[in-house]
Amino acid sequence: MIDVKDLFEKDFKKKEVTISGWIRNHRKQKEFGFIDFNDGTYFKNLQIVYDNELSNFDEIQKLHIGSAITVTGLITESVGSGQDIEMQLKSYVLEGDCPEDYPIQPKRHTREFLREQAYLRMRTNLFGAVFRVRSVAAYAIHKFFQDNGYVYFHSPIITAADAEGAGEMFQVTTLDLDRVAKNGEVDYSKDFFGKKASLTVSGQLQAETFALAYKKTYTFGPTFRAENSNTKTHACEFWMIEPEIAFCDLNEDMEIMESMLKFVVNFVLEKCPKEMDFFDKFVEKGLLDRLHKLVKRKVTRIDHKDVIDILKKAPVKWEFEPVYGGDIAREHEKYITEYFDGPVFIKNWPKDIKAFYMKQNDDGKTVAAVDLEVPGAGELMGGSQREENYDKLLNRIKELGMKPEDFDWYLNLRKFGGCAHSGFGMGFERLLIYLTGVDNIRDVIPFPRTPGNCDY
Amino acid sequence: MIDVKDLFEKDFKKKEVTISGWIRNHRKQKEFGFIDFNDGTYFKNLQIVYDNELSNFDEIQKLHIGSAITVTGLITESVGSGQDIEMQLKSYVLEGDCPEDYPIQPKRHTREFLREQAYLRMRTNLFGAVFRVRSVAAYAIHKFFQDNGYVYFHSPIITAADAEGAGEMFQVTTLDLDRVAKNGEVDYSKDFFGKKASLTVSGQLQAETFALAYKKTYTFGPTFRAENSNTKTHACEFWMIEPEIAFCDLNEDMEIMESMLKFVVNFVLEKCPKEMDFFDKFVEKGLLDRLHKLVKRKVTRIDHKDVIDILKKAPVKWEFEPVYGGDIAREHEKYITEYFDGPVFIKNWPKDIKAFYMKQNDDGKTVAAVDLEVPGAGELMGGSQREENYDKLLNRIKELGMKPEDFDWYLNLRKFGGCAHSGFGMGFERLLIYLTGVDNIRDVIPFPRTPGNCDY
Repeated sequence: MIDVKDLFEKDFKKKEVTISGWIRNHRKQKEFGFIDFNDGTYFKNLQIVYDNELSNFDEIQKLHIGSAITVTGLITESVGSGQDIEMQLKSYVLEGDCPEDYPIQPKRHTREFLREQAYLRMRTNLFGAVFRVRSVAAYAIHKFFQDNGYVYFHSPIITAADAEGAGEMFQVTTLDLDRVAKNGEVDYSKDFFGKKASLTVSGQLQAETFALAYKKTYTFGPTFRAENSNTKTHACEFWMIEPEIAFCDLNEDMEIMESMLKFVVNFVLEKCPKEMDFFDKFVEKGLLDRLHKLVKRKVTRIDHKDVIDILKKAPVKWEFEPVYGGDIAREHEKYITEYFDGPVFIKNWPKDIKAFYMKQNDDGKTVAAVDLEVPGAGELMGGSQREENYDKLLNRIKELGMKPEDFDWYLNLRKFGGCAHSGFGMGFERLLIYLTGVDNIRDVIPFPRTPGNCDY
Repeated sequence: MIDVKDLFEKDFKKKEVTISGWIRNHRKQKEFGFIDFNDGTYFKNLQIVYDNELSNFDEIQKLHIGSAITVTGLITESVGSGQDIEMQLKSYVLEGDCPEDYPIQPKRHTREFLREQAYLRMRTNLFGAVFRVRSVAAYAIHKFFQDNGYVYFHSPIITAADAEGAGEMFQVTTLDLDRVAKNGEVDYSKDFFGKKASLTVSGQLQAETFALAYKKTYTFGPTFRAENSNTKTHACEFWMIEPEIAFCDLNEDMEIMESMLKFVVNFVLEKCPKEMDFFDKFVEKGLLDRLHKLVKRKVTRIDHKDVIDILKKAPVKWEFEPVYGGDIAREHEKYITEYFDGPVFIKNWPKDIKAFYMKQNDDGKTVAAVDLEVPGAGELMGGSQREENYDKLLNRIKELGMKPEDFDWYLNLRKFGGCAHSGFGMGFERLLIYLTGVDNIRDVIPFPRTPGNCDY
């Protein structure tokens, strides 16, 4: 089976080919007609030309937009501008008709309308491009890590642990809720796992077990937050990449974060040039410039406290006042990436606003954590060196009121050949927002799950 | 950072290198000692030799098994047999000690014991090899589909649909179960999605939306069955690969199934030769022969009814009598793969024992479905052409007592440029059992979930 992609990328001129795909548009004139044909393998349509010398001309003119057809014809150099090849139709077979009330017509549809037609929206230019980039970027991530000797690890999805020690989790159960209501009590000994279970919020703790065996590991899987927030950047089901590396400190961690990001950006630019041009023209002007700049330059590295210095000196009236011991708000992220004209690693954060497993620095106040802030998408990755000292980790767990017995095996990793190790997490959809300029997370997930929405 | 893999695969002889890893074994003699060193990047240990000319000889001799160390030394040709290089130690740094009660000692541990040490078991030869093959096989699957122009699609994990129209599902909820018990009623309007939601059992129906836009798509993600069975082949959380192809009939589907399997087997044989040798020697004698045979030969294709013919004629006393309209039992699978001395595609199954979405053949009795049976692992893949006829699909849904309104969008795919399309599903763990000879699914999943077990 020949793909339209092959026709554009290899030399098929003067050859007769048979291909299958769908009619994106159909312009009819008295003596000839043009079909915009797309089989989903290539961003551009193939123009198919036919004229009234074909005996079934009238029948062809009745072909509907959206129909599936198999066509045979000669590939020729296009006479029109803007495309180098077209097909001179010889014959066709109608594989599947499409009625005229087909929702995806060759006109501009709003993203809101298309969100309601999620099962068809990948047939449009915009979403066709978004979900191809999603696929290619996912592969780029695997390729980067596999080429560099990382072991891909499937972290468990159902878990009885809570990695972050916080966060709203979805409960997973086989208890009959109607019976729970009737009986007036919840008996977890009768649940599938004999105890309360939830959907994972992170695979990091488990990934550390692999890092301390294989030296280099990464996860790439779905994670879940039952957060009841309806913003452009929140989905309750999203995919995360979580690499973890032994014998690696925070500086080396940042090197890996930076190399991975640059590799993925280059790979997508190379494999999806048409899609990226489209985003640059119709979604975010300047997107390509921004990405090319990232790839060429070294990412700035700066301590959290020095960021606060800059923010405090900035001639800006902040909504949230910058504080040395505090978090960095969205407005600060934006300012600091503009200040340095590109992505910024902010490192050595106040320990009280970061997770329990992060390595405590000698100052007693900060942890060896880093966030990568990027223009447009905000915080793209977060990483840290992990606390490798058994006693310090145990104390921190106690300090935060968590139960040490819940972290038995995690603490043991520090006892049995534990060593300096670091890792990071990247929300895959954040990356896609950064890569495409599409700013709503609902538009980079095929079938997004948000509060009240669980269609398909 | 240099990997041990590099030392074995590139030329480092007579060079001084610094590497980090763990002590797998330590044999001490009066005037010298040997450390089996492994950093997780390579199956084989690197032997490190030291003698009492080193000023800290006594200190080195105290190094514990399991400890993390960084060593500097000269790479030389090994004088001993069985390995081509070793390291002459110059200096070391102890990165992380390991007490003598470390559970992973250099001796034979049972798989049952190691299952209870799941967070450490990847440090052994067997599980180190299993989970590296898992990683490499996952990558091979992505590589096969990406190189062939497929779009990788993340099917939703939380779903309000039930793809199989059957099967035990896990419920996902944010309702407070204690409150449900107290209130005596379940109010799904207050649940996170405003309705009952579950974990997906298959991404196929959603994958069809992508196939009818991109022509070629595949999913690779976790799926769930809340089946209360404690067998060697059941886990309730497992990863599935579900490709779906438009303009593709059952014959082409089988071609793709066969090409993919052969590609993955070849890739793993090429990238993990040491691991595969180990499985062949210590897990399943004849494994390599079996895999090489698969790669070389065309897979047999035979209709379900002809399989029943063969089974009926077989000089065997069956536990389950073979029936023309019935399923193929495990003993039949075994017989038929032995009969043909290799994998077998069994096609055109009785429609009553197969899923509603499978294409009804003209005989009115069978559907265009296929199972791939392989020696050792039984049913490795199952596929079918999908029913593309709107009315036939609708009738089948009604016949089976399912609600057409639950399949609105799925039926619409047949209306809007629907066309012949096919796909298949492969359980990733089944593939790993086939590739490694390890016969218990609990031993090919890092942290398996089975009834009553949800540790880590």
